[in-house]
Amino acid sequence: MVAPRLSLSAADPIVQALKEYSPDIKNSETHLAGVLNQAVGNPGKLIRARLVDAAATTHGMDRDGALQLACAVEYFHLASLLLDDLPCMDDAQTRRGRTCPHRVHGEAPTILSSLALINRAYALAGFALAGEATQIRLAAMGCLDACLGVPGLVGGQARDLAFAESDRSAREVGRIAAAKTGALFWLAIYFPALLAEPDAEEGHHLKALCLYWGLAFQAMDDLGDLAITKSGENQGKTAGRDYSMTRPNLALAMGEVATKRRVARLMVQATRVLTKLTERRSSWFYLMNFHREYFEANVRLVLPEMEASSMAI
Amino acid sequence: MVAPRLSLSAADPIVQALKEYSPDIKNSETHLAGVLNQAVGNPGKLIRARLVDAAATTHGMDRDGALQLACAVEYFHLASLLLDDLPCMDDAQTRRGRTCPHRVHGEAPTILSSLALINRAYALAGFALAGEATQIRLAAMGCLDACLGVPGLVGGQARDLAFAESDRSAREVGRIAAAKTGALFWLAIYFPALLAEPDAEEGHHLKALCLYWGLAFQAMDDLGDLAITKSGENQGKTAGRDYSMTRPNLALAMGEVATKRRVARLMVQATRVLTKLTERRSSWFYLMNFHREYFEANVRLVLPEMEASSMAI
Repeated sequence: MVAPRLSLSAADPIVQALKEYSPDIKNSETHLAGVLNQAVGNPGKLIRARLVDAAATTHGMDRDGALQLACAVEYFHLASLLLDDLPCMDDAQTRRGRTCPHRVHGEAPTILSSLALINRAYALAGFALAGEATQIRLAAMGCLDACLGVPGLVGGQARDLAFAESDRSAREVGRIAAAKTGALFWLAIYFPALLAEPDAEEGHHLKALCLYWGLAFQAMDDLGDLAITKSGENQGKTAGRDYSMTRPNLALAMGEVATKRRVARLMVQATRVLTKLTERRSSWFYLMNFHREYFEANVRLVLPEMEASSMAI
Repeated sequence: MVAPRLSLSAADPIVQALKEYSPDIKNSETHLAGVLNQAVGNPGKLIRARLVDAAATTHGMDRDGALQLACAVEYFHLASLLLDDLPCMDDAQTRRGRTCPHRVHGEAPTILSSLALINRAYALAGFALAGEATQIRLAAMGCLDACLGVPGLVGGQARDLAFAESDRSAREVGRIAAAKTGALFWLAIYFPALLAEPDAEEGHHLKALCLYWGLAFQAMDDLGDLAITKSGENQGKTAGRDYSMTRPNLALAMGEVATKRRVARLMVQATRVLTKLTERRSSWFYLMNFHREYFEANVRLVLPEMEASSMAI
């Protein structure tokens, strides 16, 4: 999936913060330093970090806190990418246009680097939230555990890897996408939204939004993987792996046309939820902005043949 | 190293808490559940958990909080064992008398299980500390990052694995032991001691104690590894690996006799620091108890030929 380039320059405060808050590698072992340098110094689109920064700022957190929280979520994401690419998982060769760190520096320094990022992420989240009310901190801790642990990312990745042994149904693909990709959106949306102490109805809408966005994101990624498999192109990461490794791919499981329809339907559902949220409290408008700037633009790239009007966005 | 068996039964509150607070594996992928079951259901001596429980209780934390904090530290330790045994690290075959989980369930579920334990550990630490003053929570977050991240466990393990490429000196062995084993004692001693808001002098003594205990523990472990290599015995974990894998081993680097003398000297240093601490505040006495119950007993087993009097303990 080719995403529209969001602003990304050395002067970008999030790019600067990512370097500033990263684990201190001075005097550390060479390969560990090498992996961390590559992981932190070669950022992606920073979608999640930008979402968290916007959320935290909107909900009244100061500049440093918002950037710490944004970096925390980005480090969790970076750690998951380092591990996903390992030989025992996706066995990827390249990531973000470069040879994967485990192929340059070894598997052990890569695993250790992911741990360094996770530890730093928890420390930053702890620092950023230190001044918040007890009930917000408790909710945030529970949310991180659910997003990153067995109910979320860890459990989803385990199912993902065991997919070949499953019934390989579209239902199982959806279940995995909800756990894996849904969890990372949950982390980027629901986690910082806890700062605003959402009421029951808002909480319900926010969870639905994470699910719709997560599933749409995964479906677009799967469409992209299928297209690359067909064309033989390479867009910076090892592609076509879903087919060759019998990994869950919605476009393979339910067909390309049905998958595109599904993306369109998820966009409609997300828009409905966003409308309800912004009608309830105008402060949720940063989510609508993200939907327009990121999802609408991407959907147009992935589904060019669909009329924009039929997507109701 | 054969440690004296501390009380360990199914009715043990720490053993019960370890099961109760472990990641919920109901409905989770089979291999993930298998690794977590084995890791949590086959506890070791629980030295660190007992230390944390004693510290937290002494420093006024309620029963649930103390057990949560104890489980958090034990889960961090279990996660590090799962990863240490992987083929890309120590390539161990057995642990605690059983085949290592990665050899039964695969490397990926093992890496994911260690992440599940780490996430759960952070959540438990967050819950246990939620009611503490902001400055205690901030200090605790910083301490976890230092213990577990690049300055501590992660950095020490990276140096450990790169040992073959180093000068293999006794100094490098000590540096690695201080980072790796020292960090885990730091986690079990210094981290819960933060609840008592130690002053500068107490902080200094506590850090010294972690270093002495960590180095003594590692030296005794290295002596044990060497003895097993010589005798061909196997005591539940893959032994004799330090020699075969060119891993840091103090007894190999500086000789057996010198290592035993070093252990005796470290015991004297630890006792001196403990005396200063308990003279300052009687609440530190739980550390003196641990020294007597655990270290004195172990040292007598490892150094039977040394007169107890010469060790001044």
